[in-house]
Amino acid sequence: MIALKNDTFLRALMREPTEYTPIWIMRQAGRYLPEYKATRARAGSFLGLAKSPDYCTEVTLQPLDRFPLDAAILFSDILTVPDAMGLGLYFAEGEGPKFERPIRTEADVKKLPLADMGSLQYVTDAVRQIRGALDRRVPLIGFSGSPFTLACYMIEGGGSDDFARVKTMMFQRPDLLHAILEKNTESVIAYLNAQIDAGAEAVQLFDTWGGALSHHAYQEFSLQYAKRVMAGLKRENEGRVVPRIFFTKGGGLWLESMAESGADALGLDWTIHIGEAKKRVGDKVALQGNLDPLTLFAPVDVIAREAERVLSDFAYDQNATGHVFNLGHGISQFTDPAHVEALVHAVHRARTGM
Amino acid sequence: MIALKNDTFLRALMREPTEYTPIWIMRQAGRYLPEYKATRARAGSFLGLAKSPDYCTEVTLQPLDRFPLDAAILFSDILTVPDAMGLGLYFAEGEGPKFERPIRTEADVKKLPLADMGSLQYVTDAVRQIRGALDRRVPLIGFSGSPFTLACYMIEGGGSDDFARVKTMMFQRPDLLHAILEKNTESVIAYLNAQIDAGAEAVQLFDTWGGALSHHAYQEFSLQYAKRVMAGLKRENEGRVVPRIFFTKGGGLWLESMAESGADALGLDWTIHIGEAKKRVGDKVALQGNLDPLTLFAPVDVIAREAERVLSDFAYDQNATGHVFNLGHGISQFTDPAHVEALVHAVHRARTGM
Repeated sequence: MIALKNDTFLRALMREPTEYTPIWIMRQAGRYLPEYKATRARAGSFLGLAKSPDYCTEVTLQPLDRFPLDAAILFSDILTVPDAMGLGLYFAEGEGPKFERPIRTEADVKKLPLADMGSLQYVTDAVRQIRGALDRRVPLIGFSGSPFTLACYMIEGGGSDDFARVKTMMFQRPDLLHAILEKNTESVIAYLNAQIDAGAEAVQLFDTWGGALSHHAYQEFSLQYAKRVMAGLKRENEGRVVPRIFFTKGGGLWLESMAESGADALGLDWTIHIGEAKKRVGDKVALQGNLDPLTLFAPVDVIAREAERVLSDFAYDQNATGHVFNLGHGISQFTDPAHVEALVHAVHRARTGM
Repeated sequence: MIALKNDTFLRALMREPTEYTPIWIMRQAGRYLPEYKATRARAGSFLGLAKSPDYCTEVTLQPLDRFPLDAAILFSDILTVPDAMGLGLYFAEGEGPKFERPIRTEADVKKLPLADMGSLQYVTDAVRQIRGALDRRVPLIGFSGSPFTLACYMIEGGGSDDFARVKTMMFQRPDLLHAILEKNTESVIAYLNAQIDAGAEAVQLFDTWGGALSHHAYQEFSLQYAKRVMAGLKRENEGRVVPRIFFTKGGGLWLESMAESGADALGLDWTIHIGEAKKRVGDKVALQGNLDPLTLFAPVDVIAREAERVLSDFAYDQNATGHVFNLGHGISQFTDPAHVEALVHAVHRARTGM
């Protein structure tokens, strides 16, 4: 094991002592950065960028060259797995992701294959290349959509306001939804383990849409499969534990059961008081979050004050453990990069006076 | 006071004993009913319908003529108040509501008047006419958008995914947002009291967008003003208490503070286990909810089973008090009316064997 220059993030995820609260930002490599837009323009299309290890390496490192972030996250799309299950991912101009062949019928479900890991080599190649380029500055996070969140896109064929197709299947043919979730679970385990083998030093499971479910349906259709993903992941690589983060947007009501998922840390959106979350999960998991992304539209002094409030809600002190600072969801493309810099410095400064 | 033929709903809101769990359905008068669509076609436009006491009376009674619901709710739009503040409500074909003159600048805020109650006479006329037509069958619910939810539409100029304009104002010029909320609060109090004077026997404050806020921002920008609305409402009319329901979609994390709002009942969306909600609020308030609206896309036997699960989660028995059954949000326009009938009967049957 070659030591990381900065392993603060990994230690915080494992609830070990850290000198300051580490920070990374969901979607930190993205459209709010002019250098990202320049790379994206050279790549010609979003998928042209996302499927090229060279471009992925370039944009993954861009935010780290600007800000002293404590982790890098693989640049990729959340829907690579269903694409590798043959659904035909594409991006219509000015719209979100879509699938050419959504999964709607029993016949669709029956013929749905597991993700073809060979066709996902561009992702593991990117992980290896990014690790090389990072040269152990900070850890690299791998990620996947959760089985349920992937199923939402696979069934709806794209984004949705109300998940009417997913929920119709859930209520009319729960067996079909479970069959899709089984295949997604197996595919996600293989995908994340391949990222770990290629060098991902932590992994995050993004359950973007689990919060659309009822209490009971969340347990049955999202959490159950997230647990199985956690149980299927390699625990160590390169002589070090690979921590797992589980993030259900809108999952604040279900933290106690999420804390039993096998994750080392739970991501929180901004609707929950992080101190109350800490009381509820006790010492079972670390917490990651949870500033409202639109706080970055505030003047820089307000950003610093709001960041300090999250830190003090967590009740940090010199010995605090188990908090990774982040936004409660992805950063807005309309964010001023100077405001991100102010946030990173405010978080680092809070406990060290740096 | 002339006795209502069915006051089960009002008694449940006040946590008095009832023979069965009463039910009404958010948006029960609406597009899922063919007779509503026929009236809407005759009215020529949505606002033509919503601003006509005759049409409002007709559509308010339509669901009651089909199903043995335990309450009627005034048919109206959530944005009548900002319209009466001069913002120019309109509906673009195939889109949601919009305002011709959104509130964006300090000058806009300064010249924003309180709602002109004279221009809202069509609403109070509708309340009186509906009360006459109901002939005391069931109670009539009046309603308003919450000060914060109205501000969202007023500032965004329509719907929004992320409330970027509202939150930008909140972080950059909180004084302006507070000034709007003050005017909205005063207008909503006058509006709901006028509905009570005209005969509304219960009122609901809809905080559709409060759930988009952080824990702290919810307290400061939504709940604080909802409390002031509650404090400003007439407590009795026609010799009877007028119960108040407060519904923040996505507010499940904040129930303890919502229970201190002065509301008699809290509306719940479907993400929370209603039994856990009951434990958290104790005997402070009744609860209304909380079936996922898309459950109505299920076969009728599944609808009955899911409804019974909500009832048993609430731990009802012959002496249970304080539960009004409802969906967790408005009914989908694509719902089969026969499925609504199955739901109403399942809820009524559960405790009485009717």
